Amino acid sequence: MVGPYGGITAAQMLQAVWLHPDRLGEPVALTVNFAAGLRDAPFVVEARPARTNRSTQHWTMALTQSGEDGASETMITATALTAARRVTWSATDAPMPAVPRPSDTERRPLPSRQVPWLERYDMRFIAGHIPQTWDGAEADSVTCLWMRDDPPRPLDFASLSALADVFFPRVWRRRAVMTPIGTVSMTVYFHAGAAELAACGDDFVLGLARAQSFFNGYFDQSAELWSEAGQLLATTHQIVYYKE
Amino acid sequence: MVGPYGGITAAQMLQAVWLHPDRLGEPVALTVNFAAGLRDAPFVVEARPARTNRSTQHWTMALTQSGEDGASETMITATALTAARRVTWSATDAPMPAVPRPSDTERRPLPSRQVPWLERYDMRFIAGHIPQTWDGAEADSVTCLWMRDDPPRPLDFASLSALADVFFPRVWRRRAVMTPIGTVSMTVYFHAGAAELAACGDDFVLGLARAQSFFNGYFDQSAELWSEAGQLLATTHQIVYYKE
Repeated sequence: MVGPYGGITAAQMLQAVWLHPDRLGEPVALTVNFAAGLRDAPFVVEARPARTNRSTQHWTMALTQSGEDGASETMITATALTAARRVTWSATDAPMPAVPRPSDTERRPLPSRQVPWLERYDMRFIAGHIPQTWDGAEADSVTCLWMRDDPPRPLDFASLSALADVFFPRVWRRRAVMTPIGTVSMTVYFHAGAAELAACGDDFVLGLARAQSFFNGYFDQSAELWSEAGQLLATTHQIVYYKE
Repeated sequence: MVGPYGGITAAQMLQAVWLHPDRLGEPVALTVNFAAGLRDAPFVVEARPARTNRSTQHWTMALTQSGEDGASETMITATALTAARRVTWSATDAPMPAVPRPSDTERRPLPSRQVPWLERYDMRFIAGHIPQTWDGAEADSVTCLWMRDDPPRPLDFASLSALADVFFPRVWRRRAVMTPIGTVSMTVYFHAGAAELAACGDDFVLGLARAQSFFNGYFDQSAELWSEAGQLLATTHQIVYYKE
């Protein structure tokens, strides 16, 4: 509710690593801290390899903008891990729930009058849509939806990072009170490589999100993202400020 | 399996923030990236407030040691959010499971011949103990246990951060193969304030952990930590390298 869509910022922080000439391997973990709302103005993202080992590389990133007095201000901090993966024994213990296909699910967008980024996603809700009436009725905090870029584009680490932040605020779902919110920190763990993401093409991604705690101004969110074929692509967690 | 217990390093990274004279409020989020195995040698932790707002403060931290050539090497990177919380509507959606009390649960420690830190915790397993035979038999990845510092000490943000890393590697539980592992990134979200932690005294904490994905060398872990009274104190997530 301050600045641009957090998901696009997360994607930009990761993309700075992805484009870095010294990058080793592919993203495994990303944490983005939203320290201040970005202004609609130029920004600089610096990605620095803090430590490069044989098969892993730890990154620190920062996004800065010029303040009113011209001084550089830190708006976003972030860290990431990239790694050259080897093929190992693998297993998924979070199976995709049995849900209707995207083509059998109605596209019913969120209200987007003042939030243009919502139009950049094709969202097809299966459960837990945004409350239709803001009457304070308590509900669960679960949302399940198919989602895809609009216009469609092939899935990659940047777009998957952005998708990880698509879910509307869990506290709105939980209690049907439209309190101001803002994500303060977000982590994405990638459970697929570039080849697996490329194989998804511009398919939909299934997202399932819920909160576990709302405590004195901050709630958490955990979510899983699966490919249409049912592969767990990423798990993601965030902590979000809420006003009341 | 390289360097000291990761939980104590996580606690030390947070403690550097906690002790900083410019700190605003209490910890809400902590992410620690294990870039290299610490040597049994002096280290320096630098904590820097990257951005201070009215009620929140974003921190970046780094732990360095002197390399063989005397140059400073980054071993750990970390970020944290501290905040001055206000009392708001609050709710917990992750209720503590119904389990026997600590006093009714047998203390059966992990094998600790070469891992002294295990003796610094009183662990009382309810479900998902470490495999007794390493026969490759697949199982679920769930562990539930009561845990407490040994000797007991009052709970605080540092000790809770350390407890968040107590769980033995999920991949050992999942497939009873003792493959080498190493946590590469760990996040803790705090759902209690200093007053709530202090009220726990030296009570046990219930931990419940499971993995969701094992993919080409990295698996995740998500866990919840509750007070004996059933309050959700923290949720925590990590991603862990495994060799095969």
